[in-house]
Amino acid sequence: MAEPLKVGLAGLGTVGTAVVHLLEHGRDKLTARCGRPIEVVALSARSRNKKRDIDLKKFRWVADPAELAADPAIDVLVEVIGGAGDPAKRAVETALAAGKPVVTANKALLASHGHKLAMLAERHHVALNFEASVAGGIPIVKTLREGLNGNSFTRIYGILNGTCNYILSRMEEDRLSFDECLHEAQRLGYAEADPSFDVEGHDSAQKLAILASLAFGTKVDPAAIYVEGISSITLADLDAAAQLGYRVKLLGVAVRTDAGIEQRVHPTMVPKESAIAQVMGVTNAVTVDAVGLAPITLVGPGAGGMATASAIVSDLADIARGVRTPPFGRPAARMTAIRKAPMQRHEGGYYIRLLARDRPGSAATIARRLAQQKISLESIVQRHEIRTHGAGQPGRSGEPVPVILITYATTEDAVRKALAAVRRDRVISGRPQVIRIEKN
Amino acid sequence: MAEPLKVGLAGLGTVGTAVVHLLEHGRDKLTARCGRPIEVVALSARSRNKKRDIDLKKFRWVADPAELAADPAIDVLVEVIGGAGDPAKRAVETALAAGKPVVTANKALLASHGHKLAMLAERHHVALNFEASVAGGIPIVKTLREGLNGNSFTRIYGILNGTCNYILSRMEEDRLSFDECLHEAQRLGYAEADPSFDVEGHDSAQKLAILASLAFGTKVDPAAIYVEGISSITLADLDAAAQLGYRVKLLGVAVRTDAGIEQRVHPTMVPKESAIAQVMGVTNAVTVDAVGLAPITLVGPGAGGMATASAIVSDLADIARGVRTPPFGRPAARMTAIRKAPMQRHEGGYYIRLLARDRPGSAATIARRLAQQKISLESIVQRHEIRTHGAGQPGRSGEPVPVILITYATTEDAVRKALAAVRRDRVISGRPQVIRIEKN
Repeated sequence: MAEPLKVGLAGLGTVGTAVVHLLEHGRDKLTARCGRPIEVVALSARSRNKKRDIDLKKFRWVADPAELAADPAIDVLVEVIGGAGDPAKRAVETALAAGKPVVTANKALLASHGHKLAMLAERHHVALNFEASVAGGIPIVKTLREGLNGNSFTRIYGILNGTCNYILSRMEEDRLSFDECLHEAQRLGYAEADPSFDVEGHDSAQKLAILASLAFGTKVDPAAIYVEGISSITLADLDAAAQLGYRVKLLGVAVRTDAGIEQRVHPTMVPKESAIAQVMGVTNAVTVDAVGLAPITLVGPGAGGMATASAIVSDLADIARGVRTPPFGRPAARMTAIRKAPMQRHEGGYYIRLLARDRPGSAATIARRLAQQKISLESIVQRHEIRTHGAGQPGRSGEPVPVILITYATTEDAVRKALAAVRRDRVISGRPQVIRIEKN
Repeated sequence: MAEPLKVGLAGLGTVGTAVVHLLEHGRDKLTARCGRPIEVVALSARSRNKKRDIDLKKFRWVADPAELAADPAIDVLVEVIGGAGDPAKRAVETALAAGKPVVTANKALLASHGHKLAMLAERHHVALNFEASVAGGIPIVKTLREGLNGNSFTRIYGILNGTCNYILSRMEEDRLSFDECLHEAQRLGYAEADPSFDVEGHDSAQKLAILASLAFGTKVDPAAIYVEGISSITLADLDAAAQLGYRVKLLGVAVRTDAGIEQRVHPTMVPKESAIAQVMGVTNAVTVDAVGLAPITLVGPGAGGMATASAIVSDLADIARGVRTPPFGRPAARMTAIRKAPMQRHEGGYYIRLLARDRPGSAATIARRLAQQKISLESIVQRHEIRTHGAGQPGRSGEPVPVILITYATTEDAVRKALAAVRRDRVISGRPQVIRIEKN
């Protein structure tokens, strides 16, 4: 029997304990597949006394994760502490600098320091594997890093946050408000007490930054991402989407344009019959477009102990077999700084929901402002009629009238300018709702 | 610059020429990703004079593929000749025996000789990669072999034949007959002049045999697969499916049961809202179920030069990087003979469409025969009424009445026995249509 691969596990939350269980239950299969066993030998976590369903006595306990990383008794560090800073960062750096491969689920760490850590791993000729950091159990990192090597990617997009997809799915299916669904998500443990990291799109942005690097060979840079969350989405938007043949999803999108790489996270209208529109609940999905190739979509569990542990164990198995690819699929030294395409230059269709004031000329003013920005309309949905100049049926006096516009392809800049003008004209009430449309 | 990986390419059809193009266009990217260039140096194909859009003068020509495989000037053989026998088989064996890795798209070869070839590859410590053999551009082989290493698979199923999925999609969308859609598929180049290999399910069966081996660690054995094609599917079936919340797909299914591994290819009713039901046209999709994990679905182009070439180039990139996994993810010597679960013991729901003879007692007889086999019905759809014993409205005399039954979970054996009894009773016209239901 070959020497086992000895694992030091830093972090013993849901994911850490699931890794312990999966390595134990899958031991024979993994030994057969890798030619050697994979064994957890030492642990580190914040509290030793927290109640967990594993027998801690079987493992050595090292209080400091960085000390665990440096321990000569371990061959590889699994880091599931989380967070962009210490102690996770120091533990990972310590392991890599000591010539030990690292497996991590830490999207925040990779989004902030991915390129530097990849440089460090390559300098020491060790693996830095992070399948678990994006879309949990979906093997998207391996697919981008090793599975589509000869292809030129043009776009990668997906549902990267299960909490948001759960909320949007529940809103639509059960006709509930955003707040009601958020509370339900919190009750079920899908959302944190402070949900803003998820619902405002920051979690998706960290994952998108990692995917964009893998796809385009650029240095990870979450600051280059335009981010907008789902908290402003209403049932009215979901209904209008359904009526127009769309569904609303929080997407992360990275796309190669003439102006550079455009990276954005925002609520998005996707065609109802597209693969991504079918993805409901906490499930994640990622679609990859490459030159000359029909889109490839991967759908699966985006979070949860077992899904994340499954990705970690696959990364460990590669290490046990002696497989090592550069962390981002190509030498880190050759990764380029991202040339950021400004959001103003984003091109696409737009859904705009306005509350037009019920007074003569409102509709004409809105139409003129859009025309001034060369925005053409694919459709206009308006439940009550707006009073046109002088003539027409009057609406209920004073009550603003909802108007939904779908534009043909235009630019972000044009839409923002047109809507700013419409607001200055005082022909609408409140802020217009704007949702970008993504075609597949 | 490191030494290039020198490729001998056997077969110059659509896929072979696409490999040449992709390696040329992706050269810089591949060199960066693999640390060395990948270069085609020699070719072999049946006819040297066929018109192709590549410049043959740039490559050495070797008439015999086995001679190409043995050529000391090549490091790796790419086999895209096709067919389970020679010359493909001899070329692959020659390369492996000479200690050269092989990349192949040949599902027939792997389905017939996969285990022996894996043994040979492992004996000579070289890779035998075959991502392109199943579901074209979808990285399902890598996902099963390396991506979900610690997991216990319970079921794998998918749409593995683009021709059949195109035909079923067109029938439903454009309300055409099977024959009309088949002709259309032939016109578009999606179906062969002799379409039986595709439409009768044999192509799907070869691919399923490979996937089952990867998932369950059993020796490839297409003879263990129950196979049924789509040529008997009518618009009436598709309409009934839609009405009952299903869609009909030709699925390959491999599932671990108490009785062994059940492998089957047949038209299948899948819930309309499932991910697999959304897959239309020539697209392929594969879903993997593992213990404790939500299903993972991969969707993408199942065939075509570029999709297949893309898979081949990824396999070559692994070889260029020095990555080698056992062909089926675990040592071939440890793969076990498949314990075949007999089709008679298959359990599940069934769709049954009968033409009941319009005479007293037909309905009662059918009901009694089902009850004798302990088959319970979830729903009965019947357009015209069947005459019940003595009473009731008579149908148009002599004209048989279509009846559609959906059963609760039962066994294949029970359904066959009940229908055989019903036929003996002479209460139905013609053969009953039976479509199995697969729940997700």
